[in-house]
Amino acid sequence: MIVALETHDIRFPTSRELDGSDAMNPDPDYSAAYVVLRTEDDHEGHGFAFTIGRGNDVQTAAIRALTPYVIGRDPDDIGALYHELVHDSQLRWLGPEKGVMHMAIAAVVNALWDLKAKRAGKPLWLLLAELDPEEIVDLVDFRYLSDALTRDEALAILRDAAPGRAERIAHLRAHGYPAYTTSPGWLGYDDAKLARLCREALDAGFTQIKLKVGADLDDDIRRMRIAREVCGPDFRIAIDANQRWDVGAAIAWIKALAEFQPYWVEEPTSPDDVLGHAAIARAVAPIPLATGEHVQNRMIFKQLLQADAVSFLQIDAVRVAGVNENLAILLLAAKFGVPVCPHAGGVGLCELVQHLAMFDYVAVSGSLSGRVIEYVDHLHEHFHDPVLIVNGAYRPPDTPGFSATMLPRSISDHSYPDGRVWRALTPLK
Amino acid sequence: MIVALETHDIRFPTSRELDGSDAMNPDPDYSAAYVVLRTEDDHEGHGFAFTIGRGNDVQTAAIRALTPYVIGRDPDDIGALYHELVHDSQLRWLGPEKGVMHMAIAAVVNALWDLKAKRAGKPLWLLLAELDPEEIVDLVDFRYLSDALTRDEALAILRDAAPGRAERIAHLRAHGYPAYTTSPGWLGYDDAKLARLCREALDAGFTQIKLKVGADLDDDIRRMRIAREVCGPDFRIAIDANQRWDVGAAIAWIKALAEFQPYWVEEPTSPDDVLGHAAIARAVAPIPLATGEHVQNRMIFKQLLQADAVSFLQIDAVRVAGVNENLAILLLAAKFGVPVCPHAGGVGLCELVQHLAMFDYVAVSGSLSGRVIEYVDHLHEHFHDPVLIVNGAYRPPDTPGFSATMLPRSISDHSYPDGRVWRALTPLK
Repeated sequence: MIVALETHDIRFPTSRELDGSDAMNPDPDYSAAYVVLRTEDDHEGHGFAFTIGRGNDVQTAAIRALTPYVIGRDPDDIGALYHELVHDSQLRWLGPEKGVMHMAIAAVVNALWDLKAKRAGKPLWLLLAELDPEEIVDLVDFRYLSDALTRDEALAILRDAAPGRAERIAHLRAHGYPAYTTSPGWLGYDDAKLARLCREALDAGFTQIKLKVGADLDDDIRRMRIAREVCGPDFRIAIDANQRWDVGAAIAWIKALAEFQPYWVEEPTSPDDVLGHAAIARAVAPIPLATGEHVQNRMIFKQLLQADAVSFLQIDAVRVAGVNENLAILLLAAKFGVPVCPHAGGVGLCELVQHLAMFDYVAVSGSLSGRVIEYVDHLHEHFHDPVLIVNGAYRPPDTPGFSATMLPRSISDHSYPDGRVWRALTPLK
Repeated sequence: MIVALETHDIRFPTSRELDGSDAMNPDPDYSAAYVVLRTEDDHEGHGFAFTIGRGNDVQTAAIRALTPYVIGRDPDDIGALYHELVHDSQLRWLGPEKGVMHMAIAAVVNALWDLKAKRAGKPLWLLLAELDPEEIVDLVDFRYLSDALTRDEALAILRDAAPGRAERIAHLRAHGYPAYTTSPGWLGYDDAKLARLCREALDAGFTQIKLKVGADLDDDIRRMRIAREVCGPDFRIAIDANQRWDVGAAIAWIKALAEFQPYWVEEPTSPDDVLGHAAIARAVAPIPLATGEHVQNRMIFKQLLQADAVSFLQIDAVRVAGVNENLAILLLAAKFGVPVCPHAGGVGLCELVQHLAMFDYVAVSGSLSGRVIEYVDHLHEHFHDPVLIVNGAYRPPDTPGFSATMLPRSISDHSYPDGRVWRALTPLK
């Protein structure tokens, strides 16, 4: 039984180094609205919503508001609790199924999964990959999806993938899951740092990098040229506009960068604009689009697939309602044959999303073709079970749980505004 | 200069009477996350976000988090402040432009307009209707809209409507703005109460009513038959499913109710599902669809129009980012020739949205054809300037401001959980 829900407002002063700077986010302070669920027998489940600074207090308050829903509940009853949280008629008005309240639900649902996996003594990806197809579809909310994916279709996808599971688990353990790195490409870095980090990415065995674009076209052309020169003509270089453009501007800008052969163009416009993405995709074909880190829920993902708007689908571990809603999105992507390439970075997003990608490979898509998990080399040292990248690939985690647990010292030092790190900083304004 | 931002968590125990009950919201406690802005010269601007109970504390916290953005600011600088709030790079992560943080911005932006109109000594609809076309478009954020509506196109719409403004103001003052009533149609009411309230709506001069549907098809058929019998074959009866259906279910259910000639079908499915609405609209044509009260921002409205998914567009005064974002939506609707029929009800939504509809008529669409504002006869007694309905039409407000000001006694009595009304209630569980 769950007996306590504890929250922490944790912020890292990353804006001081321009880590994470892009065309829309010039000065993020990577933050976590962090939750710990405790059981009467002293087990813990950890989860969090990721934000980039201001407003992390509101996000933390939203998680705290879920306390009455989880106290006294059986932590194994995740499917029912997920359904109650998402469909509570009064809370639902605050979304529905989007924004602050939805991310709060994500944090709690993910903490429940962390707890379950820890108690089972398994890393989450393996725990999920060992469930029966029927158990998996029971975790999925098909509401608003049935015109694109029915329960029976989802079951068929999972059953088709079942025979190869053991082999793919062995493959993951031998070779890991391919990663790409965004570390070279932040807009705030100068040209020399960009070139140096591109070389380091090659040397580290990555087969793809990503550059931020969209603030200034001349800068983008110069930076793409540098990256191409360092990485060579056949290396995958994705670009990411972080929602900077309107539809017309996106088309013009992407065409101006076409000579550098972007592997994909990420977030060309508003994540809400399905028809806009479809219009851009048609205009810039065959250059493929990618989006998802800001896509609010399964209904928008469904439409992006129905409209043939994106060629890569980028799930985020904490923006939609946690593991359960991501199961729906993985199944939708499999139905439409679109590869899932998860968003990561921030605080702990790499740690979480690797589990979902590995589950997808083992039990849903059955394929690594065109699939790659984002990797950003920031803030992993604050986690109990940080990701391990070897030769450009994520090693499958062995430790029980969802890799969500932050170190106690990191939590206390970065608690906002009274933690040691924040007390030592001079306020920016 | 703004010197204070004060918030109140106000809730009305409406669930005890099943007022407001529908297929998705069985027991709403109509609530307001209420904000008062104060200037150094003792002026006040009032605004609020509307919720239906649980989570109103989170919504109130989100408004409070905006305090540093407004303190010390010139309250006349609404356009710039609106832009800063919506595009603050860190806060934006919590949406972007949707959910709790977006509704918090709505409350503050609307409070700024209330303040401005009070200081100008004019009701807001008139203040807006007397702005130059250039001043109006300067208030609009065209980001992500330019593929559907440019600044020049918006200016042309406003200039085309300018010559008839005085005449339409006179028409409003003589005849009011047509209303329809949802009061007869709540799902929790029995058949006798439904029939009685339908008759009362006819007697009060309304030319349209709306019934909630979607929980049980046999019930819906019986209730539609009762309403048709009371109201006659030519009376407008709209129906509202409150997002209850998937696409396929919506099509089947609407066809089963087609014999009763629904004037529109409101919220057949998820408000996020543009393509779903378009598919339903094609399948049930010529029965028209309506949606909007849960549409999160101008980007979704844009797509609903681009996809020819709805025949009536229902703005809400407090879900999108207040007056400014609603100006964009009114202009989009005018561009596409779709009538705007605002959502109202709840707490104070009638009071607010009448100003936007009247402005739309005077300065944007220039037409009342097919246009009607929702009216629900609840909770108006708590407002300083309650709406006035005469012969089925909203009388244009004369009192300066946005009609958002709640009575001090109503605020204190309904403050949650310590107000007099809540202390006197026995908890439900």
